[in-house]
Amino acid sequence: MRETLVLHEYAASGNCYKVRLTAAFLGLSLERQAYDIMKGETRTPEFLANVNANGRIPVLQAGDRFIPESNAACFYLADGTPLVPADRFGRADTLRWMFWEQYSHEPNIATLRFWFGWVGEVNLTDAQRAQLPAKRAAGEAALKLMDEHLAERAWFVGDRITLADIALYAYTHVCEGGGFRLADYPNVDAWLGRVAAAPNYIPIDA
Amino acid sequence: MRETLVLHEYAASGNCYKVRLTAAFLGLSLERQAYDIMKGETRTPEFLANVNANGRIPVLQAGDRFIPESNAACFYLADGTPLVPADRFGRADTLRWMFWEQYSHEPNIATLRFWFGWVGEVNLTDAQRAQLPAKRAAGEAALKLMDEHLAERAWFVGDRITLADIALYAYTHVCEGGGFRLADYPNVDAWLGRVAAAPNYIPIDA
Repeated sequence: MRETLVLHEYAASGNCYKVRLTAAFLGLSLERQAYDIMKGETRTPEFLANVNANGRIPVLQAGDRFIPESNAACFYLADGTPLVPADRFGRADTLRWMFWEQYSHEPNIATLRFWFGWVGEVNLTDAQRAQLPAKRAAGEAALKLMDEHLAERAWFVGDRITLADIALYAYTHVCEGGGFRLADYPNVDAWLGRVAAAPNYIPIDA
Repeated sequence: MRETLVLHEYAASGNCYKVRLTAAFLGLSLERQAYDIMKGETRTPEFLANVNANGRIPVLQAGDRFIPESNAACFYLADGTPLVPADRFGRADTLRWMFWEQYSHEPNIATLRFWFGWVGEVNLTDAQRAQLPAKRAAGEAALKLMDEHLAERAWFVGDRITLADIALYAYTHVCEGGGFRLADYPNVDAWLGRVAAAPNYIPIDA
Protein backbone atom coordinates (compact mmCIF):
# COMPACT_ATOMS: atom_id res chain seq x y z
CA MET A 1 0.00 0.00 0.00
CA ARG A 2 1.43 3.36 -1.00
CA GLU A 3 -0.99 5.58 0.89
CA THR A 4 -0.16 6.69 4.43
CA LEU A 5 -1.91 4.56 7.06
CA VAL A 6 -2.85 6.17 10.37
CA LEU A 7 -4.49 4.25 13.18
CA HIS A 8 -6.69 6.41 15.42
CA GLU A 9 -6.65 4.39 18.61
CA TYR A 10 -6.60 3.75 22.34
CA ALA A 11 -3.67 1.40 22.65
CA ALA A 12 -5.01 -0.96 25.36
CA SER A 13 -8.18 -1.68 23.36
CA GLY A 14 -8.17 -5.16 21.87
CA ASN A 15 -10.08 -3.80 18.90
CA CYS A 16 -7.21 -1.38 18.19
CA TYR A 17 -4.59 -4.09 18.79
CA LYS A 18 -6.24 -6.25 16.09
CA VAL A 19 -5.44 -3.63 13.48
CA ARG A 20 -1.83 -3.26 14.67
CA LEU A 21 -1.37 -7.04 14.74
CA THR A 22 -2.77 -7.40 11.21
CA ALA A 23 -0.41 -4.68 9.97
CA ALA A 24 2.53 -6.35 11.74
CA PHE A 25 1.81 -9.75 10.18
CA LEU A 26 1.66 -8.05 6.78
CA GLY A 27 4.80 -5.96 7.32
CA LEU A 28 2.88 -2.69 6.95
CA SER A 29 3.78 0.51 8.80
CA LEU A 30 1.07 2.34 10.74
CA GLU A 31 1.28 5.81 12.19
CA ARG A 32 -0.53 5.96 15.51
CA GLN A 33 -2.78 8.76 16.82
CA ALA A 34 -3.78 8.23 20.47
CA TYR A 35 -7.06 9.24 22.11
CA ASP A 36 -7.91 8.79 25.79
CA ILE A 37 -11.35 7.17 25.80
CA MET A 38 -11.53 7.61 29.59
CA LYS A 39 -11.45 11.38 29.00
CA GLY A 40 -14.02 11.32 26.20
CA GLU A 41 -11.53 12.25 23.50
CA THR A 42 -13.43 10.23 20.86
CA ARG A 43 -16.68 12.09 21.58
CA THR A 44 -15.45 15.62 20.85
CA PRO A 45 -17.15 17.58 18.04
CA GLU A 46 -13.87 17.44 16.08
CA PHE A 47 -13.58 13.66 16.34
CA LEU A 48 -17.23 13.12 15.43
CA ALA A 49 -16.98 15.46 12.44
CA ASN A 50 -13.60 14.39 11.09
CA VAL A 51 -12.83 10.82 12.17
CA ASN A 52 -15.92 8.80 13.13
CA ALA A 53 -19.50 10.03 13.63
CA ASN A 54 -19.99 6.94 15.80
CA GLY A 55 -17.50 8.25 18.40
CA ARG A 56 -15.46 5.07 18.63
CA ILE A 57 -11.98 3.84 17.99
CA PRO A 58 -10.25 2.21 16.21
CA VAL A 59 -10.52 4.07 12.94
CA LEU A 60 -8.04 3.31 10.18
CA GLN A 61 -7.20 6.30 8.04
CA ALA A 62 -5.96 5.36 4.59
CA GLY A 63 -4.84 8.52 2.84
CA ASP A 64 -7.83 10.85 3.29
CA ARG A 65 -10.42 8.10 3.82
CA PHE A 66 -11.56 6.67 7.13
CA ILE A 67 -12.50 3.08 8.02
CA PRO A 68 -14.22 2.60 11.39
CA GLU A 69 -14.96 -0.85 12.86
CA SER A 70 -11.91 -2.89 13.80
CA ASN A 71 -12.67 -5.91 11.66
CA ALA A 72 -13.39 -3.81 8.56
CA ALA A 73 -10.05 -2.04 9.08
CA CYS A 74 -8.28 -5.42 9.33
CA PHE A 75 -10.03 -6.57 6.16
CA TYR A 76 -8.91 -3.43 4.33
CA LEU A 77 -5.29 -4.14 5.23
CA ALA A 78 -5.43 -7.88 4.50
CA ASP A 79 -7.70 -7.96 1.43
CA GLY A 80 -5.86 -9.88 -1.28
CA THR A 81 -3.27 -11.36 1.10
CA PRO A 82 -3.09 -14.89 2.58
CA LEU A 83 -4.73 -13.59 5.78
CA VAL A 84 -8.01 -13.63 3.79
CA PRO A 85 -8.58 -17.04 2.15
CA ALA A 86 -8.68 -16.95 -1.64
CA ASP A 87 -11.65 -19.29 -1.96
CA ARG A 88 -15.24 -18.12 -1.62
CA PHE A 89 -16.17 -20.41 1.28
CA GLY A 90 -12.97 -19.61 3.15
CA ARG A 91 -13.59 -15.87 2.85
CA ALA A 92 -17.15 -16.25 4.13
CA ASP A 93 -16.03 -18.57 6.93
CA THR A 94 -13.38 -16.05 8.00
CA LEU A 95 -16.01 -13.31 8.07
CA ARG A 96 -18.33 -15.67 9.95
CA TRP A 97 -15.86 -15.80 12.86
CA MET A 98 -15.25 -12.06 12.67
CA PHE A 99 -18.99 -11.29 12.88
CA TRP A 100 -19.33 -13.86 15.67
CA GLU A 101 -16.48 -12.15 17.50
CA GLN A 102 -18.23 -8.78 17.43
CA TYR A 103 -21.66 -10.17 18.35
CA SER A 104 -21.05 -13.07 20.75
CA HIS A 105 -17.49 -12.60 22.08
CA GLU A 106 -16.49 -8.94 22.34
CA PRO A 107 -19.67 -7.63 24.06
CA ASN A 108 -19.11 -10.17 26.84
CA ILE A 109 -15.38 -10.82 27.14
CA ALA A 110 -14.12 -7.35 26.25
CA THR A 111 -16.87 -5.60 28.19
CA LEU A 112 -16.13 -7.47 31.43
CA ARG A 113 -12.42 -6.73 31.00
CA PHE A 114 -13.30 -3.04 30.60
CA TRP A 115 -15.74 -2.99 33.50
CA PHE A 116 -13.38 -4.73 35.92
CA GLY A 117 -10.09 -3.28 34.67
CA TRP A 118 -11.00 0.28 33.72
CA VAL A 119 -14.38 1.30 35.19
CA GLY A 120 -13.94 -0.65 38.44
CA GLU A 121 -16.53 -3.01 39.90
CA VAL A 122 -17.62 -0.53 42.61
CA ASN A 123 -18.39 2.08 39.97
CA LEU A 124 -20.71 -0.05 37.83
CA THR A 125 -24.26 1.22 37.39
CA ASP A 126 -27.18 -0.90 38.57
CA ALA A 127 -28.02 -1.66 34.92
CA GLN A 128 -24.45 -2.85 34.30
CA ARG A 129 -24.40 -4.89 37.50
CA ALA A 130 -27.66 -6.58 36.45
CA GLN A 131 -25.95 -7.73 33.24
CA LEU A 132 -22.94 -9.35 34.93
CA PRO A 133 -24.36 -12.90 35.21
CA ALA A 134 -25.55 -12.95 31.58
CA LYS A 135 -22.27 -11.54 30.26
CA ARG A 136 -20.27 -13.99 32.36
CA ALA A 137 -22.31 -16.93 31.04
CA ALA A 138 -22.18 -15.71 27.43
CA GLY A 139 -18.44 -15.12 27.62
CA GLU A 140 -17.89 -18.61 29.01
CA ALA A 141 -20.09 -20.05 26.27
CA ALA A 142 -18.02 -18.20 23.66
CA LEU A 143 -14.75 -19.58 25.03
CA LYS A 144 -16.25 -23.08 25.20
CA LEU A 145 -17.37 -22.87 21.58
CA MET A 146 -13.87 -21.78 20.56
CA ASP A 147 -12.32 -24.58 22.62
CA GLU A 148 -14.52 -27.19 20.94
CA HIS A 149 -13.83 -25.77 17.47
CA LEU A 150 -10.09 -25.97 18.14
CA ALA A 151 -10.20 -29.55 19.46
CA GLU A 152 -9.05 -30.92 16.12
CA ARG A 153 -7.87 -27.80 14.34
CA ALA A 154 -4.81 -25.58 14.62
CA TRP A 155 -6.53 -22.45 13.21
CA PHE A 156 -10.11 -21.21 12.98
CA VAL A 157 -10.38 -21.41 9.19
CA GLY A 158 -8.46 -23.76 6.93
CA ASP A 159 -4.91 -24.77 7.74
CA ARG A 160 -3.19 -21.46 8.35
CA ILE A 161 -3.60 -18.24 10.28
CA THR A 162 -6.25 -15.83 8.96
CA LEU A 163 -8.03 -12.68 10.07
CA ALA A 164 -10.41 -14.92 12.02
CA ASP A 165 -7.56 -15.87 14.35
CA ILE A 166 -6.36 -12.27 14.68
CA ALA A 167 -9.86 -10.95 15.45
CA LEU A 168 -10.44 -13.62 18.08
CA TYR A 169 -6.96 -13.45 19.58
CA ALA A 170 -7.20 -9.78 20.52
CA TYR A 171 -9.58 -10.05 23.47
CA THR A 172 -9.19 -13.78 24.16
CA HIS A 173 -5.56 -13.49 25.16
CA VAL A 174 -6.42 -10.88 27.80
CA CYS A 175 -9.71 -12.44 28.91
CA GLU A 176 -8.42 -13.11 32.41
CA GLY A 177 -8.65 -9.36 33.00
CA GLY A 178 -12.43 -9.88 32.85
CA GLY A 179 -12.35 -12.83 35.23
CA PHE A 180 -12.31 -15.67 32.70
CA ARG A 181 -9.86 -18.55 33.23
CA LEU A 182 -7.82 -19.74 30.25
CA ALA A 183 -6.92 -22.93 32.12
CA ASP A 184 -10.53 -24.01 31.59
CA TYR A 185 -10.04 -23.87 27.79
CA PRO A 186 -6.85 -25.80 26.98
CA ASN A 187 -7.34 -25.85 23.21
CA VAL A 188 -7.82 -22.09 23.24
CA ASP A 189 -4.71 -21.70 25.37
CA ALA A 190 -2.63 -23.78 22.94
CA TRP A 191 -3.98 -21.80 19.97
CA LEU A 192 -3.05 -18.52 21.70
CA GLY A 193 0.50 -19.87 21.81
CA ARG A 194 0.44 -20.62 18.08
CA VAL A 195 -0.70 -17.09 17.24
CA ALA A 196 1.99 -15.58 19.49
CA ALA A 197 4.62 -17.73 17.77
CA ALA A 198 3.66 -16.62 14.25
CA PRO A 199 6.30 -14.60 12.35
CA ASN A 200 6.17 -10.82 12.95
CA TYR A 201 3.82 -11.16 15.95
CA ILE A 202 3.73 -8.13 18.27
CA PRO A 203 2.23 -8.02 21.78
CA ILE A 204 -0.62 -5.69 22.76
CA ASP A 205 1.73 -3.34 24.60
CA ALA A 206 4.26 -3.00 21.79
CA MET B 1 -23.83 -21.16 -7.93
CA ARG B 2 -24.41 -24.79 -8.78
CA GLU B 3 -24.54 -26.17 -5.26
CA THR B 4 -27.86 -26.46 -3.46
CA LEU B 5 -28.47 -23.56 -1.09
CA VAL B 6 -30.56 -24.17 2.03
CA LEU B 7 -31.40 -21.42 4.51
CA HIS B 8 -31.93 -22.68 8.05
CA GLU B 9 -34.13 -19.95 9.45
CA TYR B 10 -36.91 -18.42 11.52
CA ALA B 11 -38.76 -16.42 8.89
CA ALA B 12 -39.67 -13.33 10.95
CA SER B 13 -36.03 -12.76 11.95
CA GLY B 14 -34.52 -9.79 10.19
CA ASN B 15 -31.19 -11.61 10.18
CA CYS B 16 -32.77 -14.44 8.17
CA TYR B 17 -34.60 -12.01 5.88
CA LYS B 18 -31.25 -10.41 4.96
CA VAL B 19 -30.09 -13.66 3.42
CA ARG B 20 -33.35 -14.15 1.50
CA LEU B 21 -33.25 -10.55 0.26
CA THR B 22 -29.65 -10.91 -0.90
CA ALA B 23 -30.55 -14.12 -2.76
CA ALA B 24 -33.58 -12.42 -4.33
CA PHE B 25 -31.55 -9.45 -5.58
CA LEU B 26 -29.08 -11.92 -7.10
CA GLY B 27 -31.75 -14.16 -8.63
CA LEU B 28 -30.62 -17.17 -6.57
CA SER B 29 -32.97 -19.89 -5.34
CA LEU B 30 -32.90 -20.85 -1.67
CA GLU B 31 -34.55 -23.84 -0.08
CA ARG B 32 -35.90 -22.95 3.34
CA GLN B 33 -35.78 -25.05 6.52
CA ALA B 34 -37.84 -23.52 9.35
CA TYR B 35 -37.08 -23.69 13.08
CA ASP B 36 -39.28 -22.25 15.84
CA ILE B 37 -36.89 -20.27 18.03
CA MET B 38 -39.68 -19.74 20.57
CA LYS B 39 -39.73 -23.52 21.10
CA GLY B 40 -35.94 -23.85 21.33
CA GLU B 41 -35.62 -25.71 18.04
CA THR B 42 -32.15 -24.21 17.39
CA ARG B 43 -30.83 -25.45 20.75
CA THR B 44 -31.48 -29.17 20.27
CA PRO B 45 -28.49 -31.54 20.32
CA GLU B 46 -29.11 -32.29 16.64
CA PHE B 47 -29.05 -28.62 15.62
CA LEU B 48 -25.94 -27.90 17.69
CA ALA B 49 -24.11 -30.92 16.27
CA ASN B 50 -25.16 -30.62 12.63
CA VAL B 51 -26.05 -27.01 11.81
CA ASN B 52 -24.53 -24.48 14.23
CA ALA B 53 -22.76 -25.11 17.54
CA ASN B 54 -23.73 -21.54 18.45
CA GLY B 55 -27.45 -22.46 18.48
CA ARG B 56 -28.56 -19.58 16.29
CA ILE B 57 -30.18 -18.97 12.96
CA PRO B 58 -29.74 -18.04 10.18
CA VAL B 59 -27.30 -20.60 8.87
CA LEU B 60 -26.75 -20.85 5.13
CA GLN B 61 -26.02 -24.37 3.94
CA ALA B 62 -24.08 -24.46 0.67
CA GLY B 63 -23.86 -28.05 -0.43
CA ASP B 64 -22.56 -29.84 2.67
CA ARG B 65 -20.96 -26.76 4.26
CA PHE B 66 -22.57 -24.42 6.78
CA ILE B 67 -22.20 -20.66 7.13
CA PRO B 68 -23.59 -19.14 10.36
CA GLU B 69 -23.82 -15.37 10.94
CA SER B 70 -26.25 -13.53 8.70
CA ASN B 71 -23.80 -11.07 7.22
CA ALA B 72 -21.24 -13.79 6.42
CA ALA B 73 -23.99 -15.75 4.65
CA CYS B 74 -24.92 -12.65 2.62
CA PHE B 75 -21.25 -12.13 1.74
CA TYR B 76 -20.95 -15.73 0.56
CA LEU B 77 -23.88 -15.24 -1.82
CA ALA B 78 -22.81 -11.82 -3.07
CA ASP B 79 -19.03 -12.24 -3.24
CA GLY B 80 -17.92 -11.27 -6.75
CA THR B 81 -21.23 -9.56 -7.64
CA PRO B 82 -22.04 -5.82 -7.75
CA LEU B 83 -23.56 -6.09 -4.24
CA VAL B 84 -19.94 -6.16 -2.99
CA PRO B 85 -17.93 -3.22 -4.39
CA ALA B 86 -15.02 -4.25 -6.59
CA ASP B 87 -12.58 -1.71 -5.11
CA ARG B 88 -10.66 -2.34 -1.91
CA PHE B 89 -11.99 0.70 -0.03
CA GLY B 90 -15.57 0.01 -1.12
CA ARG B 91 -15.35 -3.59 0.10
CA ALA B 92 -13.99 -2.48 3.48
CA ASP B 93 -16.57 0.31 3.75
CA THR B 94 -19.38 -2.16 3.01
CA LEU B 95 -18.05 -4.46 5.74
CA ARG B 96 -17.71 -1.45 8.04
CA TRP B 97 -21.48 -0.88 7.90
CA MET B 98 -22.18 -4.60 8.26
CA PHE B 99 -20.02 -4.85 11.40
CA TRP B 100 -21.62 -1.65 12.71
CA GLU B 101 -25.03 -3.17 12.09
CA GLN B 102 -24.24 -6.22 14.19
CA TYR B 103 -22.58 -4.25 17.00
CA SER B 104 -24.45 -0.95 17.28
CA HIS B 105 -27.79 -1.48 15.50
CA GLU B 106 -29.06 -5.05 15.82
CA PRO B 107 -28.47 -5.51 19.59
CA ASN B 108 -30.63 -2.45 20.21
CA ILE B 109 -33.19 -2.18 17.41
CA ALA B 110 -33.73 -5.89 16.79
CA THR B 111 -33.63 -6.76 20.46
CA LEU B 112 -36.33 -4.24 21.41
CA ARG B 113 -38.49 -5.50 18.52
CA PHE B 114 -38.06 -9.05 19.86
CA TRP B 115 -38.65 -8.10 23.48
CA PHE B 116 -41.81 -6.10 22.72
CA GLY B 117 -43.16 -8.18 19.85
CA TRP B 118 -42.25 -11.74 20.84
CA VAL B 119 -41.32 -11.94 24.54
CA GLY B 120 -43.83 -9.33 25.70
CA GLU B 121 -43.00 -6.38 27.95
CA VAL B 122 -44.62 -7.96 31.02
CA ASN B 123 -42.43 -11.05 30.65
CA LEU B 124 -39.07 -9.25 30.60
CA THR B 125 -36.60 -10.18 33.32
CA ASP B 126 -35.37 -7.50 35.70
CA ALA B 127 -31.99 -7.56 33.96
CA GLN B 128 -33.67 -7.01 30.58
CA ARG B 129 -35.87 -4.25 31.98
CA ALA B 130 -32.79 -2.50 33.38
CA GLN B 131 -31.34 -2.39 29.85
CA LEU B 132 -34.36 -0.77 28.20
CA PRO B 133 -33.24 2.89 28.56
CA ALA B 134 -29.73 2.17 27.25
CA LYS B 135 -31.02 0.10 24.32
CA ARG B 136 -33.61 2.75 23.47
CA ALA B 137 -30.95 5.48 23.48
CA ALA B 138 -28.44 3.40 21.51
CA GLY B 139 -31.08 2.43 18.94
CA GLU B 140 -32.08 6.07 18.49
CA ALA B 141 -28.40 7.03 18.15
CA ALA B 142 -27.96 4.37 15.46
CA LEU B 143 -30.97 5.63 13.48
CA LYS B 144 -29.73 9.23 13.84
CA LEU B 145 -26.28 8.25 12.56
CA MET B 146 -27.90 6.54 9.56
CA ASP B 147 -30.12 9.57 8.94
CA GLU B 148 -27.12 11.91 8.93
CA HIS B 149 -25.10 9.61 6.68
CA LEU B 150 -28.00 9.51 4.19
CA ALA B 151 -28.51 13.29 4.18
CA GLU B 152 -26.58 13.66 0.94
CA ARG B 153 -26.36 10.07 -0.25
CA ALA B 154 -28.79 7.64 -1.84
CA TRP B 155 -26.99 4.50 -0.62
CA PHE B 156 -24.65 3.65 2.27
CA VAL B 157 -21.58 2.94 0.13
CA GLY B 158 -20.84 4.42 -3.28
CA ASP B 159 -23.62 5.19 -5.72
CA ARG B 160 -25.58 1.95 -5.83
CA ILE B 161 -27.14 -0.63 -3.54
CA THR B 162 -24.73 -2.97 -1.73
CA LEU B 163 -24.79 -5.52 1.07
CA ALA B 164 -24.46 -2.58 3.48
CA ASP B 165 -27.96 -1.43 2.49
CA ILE B 166 -29.39 -4.94 2.70
CA ALA B 167 -27.88 -5.61 6.13
CA LEU B 168 -29.18 -2.33 7.50
CA TYR B 169 -32.58 -2.52 5.81
CA ALA B 170 -33.58 -5.79 7.48
CA TYR B 171 -34.24 -4.52 11.00
CA THR B 172 -34.56 -0.81 10.19
CA HIS B 173 -37.71 -1.26 8.11
CA VAL B 174 -39.45 -3.03 11.02
CA CYS B 175 -37.97 -0.85 13.80
CA GLU B 176 -41.38 0.53 14.76
CA GLY B 177 -42.11 -2.91 16.23
CA GLY B 178 -39.52 -2.01 18.86
CA GLY B 179 -41.03 1.42 19.51
CA PHE B 180 -38.80 3.52 17.23
CA ARG B 181 -40.44 6.11 14.98
CA LEU B 182 -39.35 6.28 11.35
CA ALA B 183 -40.97 9.71 11.00
CA ASP B 184 -38.12 11.03 13.14
CA TYR B 185 -35.60 9.90 10.51
CA PRO B 186 -36.80 11.19 7.13
CA ASN B 187 -33.62 10.34 5.21
CA VAL B 188 -33.79 6.79 6.52
CA ASP B 189 -37.44 6.60 5.56
CA ALA B 190 -36.69 7.73 2.00
CA TRP B 191 -33.81 5.24 1.72
CA LEU B 192 -36.10 2.41 2.87
CA GLY B 193 -38.31 3.31 -0.08
CA ARG B 194 -35.37 3.12 -2.47
CA VAL B 195 -34.42 -0.34 -1.24
CA ALA B 196 -38.02 -1.55 -1.54
CA ALA B 197 -38.17 -0.22 -5.11
CA ALA B 198 -35.03 -2.06 -6.23
CA PRO B 199 -35.51 -4.78 -8.88
CA ASN B 200 -36.31 -8.25 -7.47
CA TYR B 201 -37.04 -6.91 -3.96
CA ILE B 202 -39.08 -9.22 -1.74
CA PRO B 203 -40.80 -8.28 1.55
CA ILE B 204 -39.96 -9.94 4.87
CA ASP B 205 -43.15 -12.03 4.80
CA ALA B 206 -42.69 -13.35 1.28
